[in-house]
Amino acid sequence: MYAKGPQLYEGKAKKVFATTDPDLVIIHYKDDATAFNGEKKGQIEDKGVMNNRITSILFSHLAQAGIPTHFIEQLNDRDMVCKKVTIIPLEVIIRNVAAGSMSKRLGVAEGTELKTTVFEISYKNDALGDPLINDYHAVAIGLASFAELEEIYHLAGRINESLKVFFLERGIRLIDFKLEFGRTSQGELVLADEISPDTCRFWDAATNEKLDKDRFRRDLGNVKEAYIEILSRISR
Amino acid sequence: MYAKGPQLYEGKAKKVFATTDPDLVIIHYKDDATAFNGEKKGQIEDKGVMNNRITSILFSHLAQAGIPTHFIEQLNDRDMVCKKVTIIPLEVIIRNVAAGSMSKRLGVAEGTELKTTVFEISYKNDALGDPLINDYHAVAIGLASFAELEEIYHLAGRINESLKVFFLERGIRLIDFKLEFGRTSQGELVLADEISPDTCRFWDAATNEKLDKDRFRRDLGNVKEAYIEILSRISR
Repeated sequence: MYAKGPQLYEGKAKKVFATTDPDLVIIHYKDDATAFNGEKKGQIEDKGVMNNRITSILFSHLAQAGIPTHFIEQLNDRDMVCKKVTIIPLEVIIRNVAAGSMSKRLGVAEGTELKTTVFEISYKNDALGDPLINDYHAVAIGLASFAELEEIYHLAGRINESLKVFFLERGIRLIDFKLEFGRTSQGELVLADEISPDTCRFWDAATNEKLDKDRFRRDLGNVKEAYIEILSRISR
Repeated sequence: MYAKGPQLYEGKAKKVFATTDPDLVIIHYKDDATAFNGEKKGQIEDKGVMNNRITSILFSHLAQAGIPTHFIEQLNDRDMVCKKVTIIPLEVIIRNVAAGSMSKRLGVAEGTELKTTVFEISYKNDALGDPLINDYHAVAIGLASFAELEEIYHLAGRINESLKVFFLERGIRLIDFKLEFGRTSQGELVLADEISPDTCRFWDAATNEKLDKDRFRRDLGNVKEAYIEILSRISR
């Protein structure tokens, strides 16, 4: 029914294929893992299977909460069908607790509670290392308009509120996560890309154990097990 | 009348002294020049004299345009009297044309016109290298409130509009510049620090010749002459 057409794009963790419907694509999840802007490379066994399933569950949940997304349905272990979108070249990062690059940049210990939820945008550009930018930069070089940014922050805030509750009910603290947005051929702004342990920091609510790609980035061991744990908890 | 008391602070280019009035300080301008977060060091002969005079002229001009500043009056060649302020630990950068760190960060050629004026804030923290941050970061770690930031951007926009015209009338393009703000003991938010070829990019409007600290940063020669040229043009 959804026949895989030519490959349109290959990213670090996913491939995108055309379908017979020009408005739909098939997204295929790989096991490849990268970190530090591609400097560290590896594989996590069955990561593609788990991230495809985790993203399908989370995007379905968000759709039920009224968030427009590119997700149509999960096709099989590693493939999902999505609306074809033009990606806005921004990584949108939402931080509930200081960690990772923000801790380093601002000299704030990981785990520090923040006086406000932090929204960040980075310019999606591998050659430049996906630099942190602000709204003025994005508009000044034509990546988005101020109105688009406002819409993106509004959606990102709603997604955060929805996911924080969803994960906490499952014993997981949503520390921070990265979103990407795109426009459909009809011009609708929708949540795109994935939401998974590759793109989120998840800490166990009881022990603060890391259950995300930081186990790969920082060589903490039990990488695959963390992905399995997340999938298991959100499948309940 | 304004007796220099104990030194309160020494920065890279200035010293601050107490006076007999607890609400006033004397700011002394040095010839020391630094670049790249202090990695490059040197001296520019009589820079302190020129920057003291240039800042006095510009702050007087801005005060006449209704901008609240810390400036009271120029005392002598290297000293000015200012209101004592608590500096808000942000560098506020205003960019009319792409140059310097923004060009590098975003891969945009120097001299590129921007679709909107760019305002940036950096966290004033030498150990961290004065990192670029956004409003959420500033609020999240307690550097400023959203209301303070709004007031700061509003003032920075007014200052930019006033200075762009002032300099263009004197054959100078105001490419970008850095401001700092502080609060007086009465709680008033005022423009503080300096405005000089140390803190601005000035390009000759006819030739685009650089007339600012980039001549020192990039070893372009005729460093002192550029400062003299700026002082000469704004003294007319």
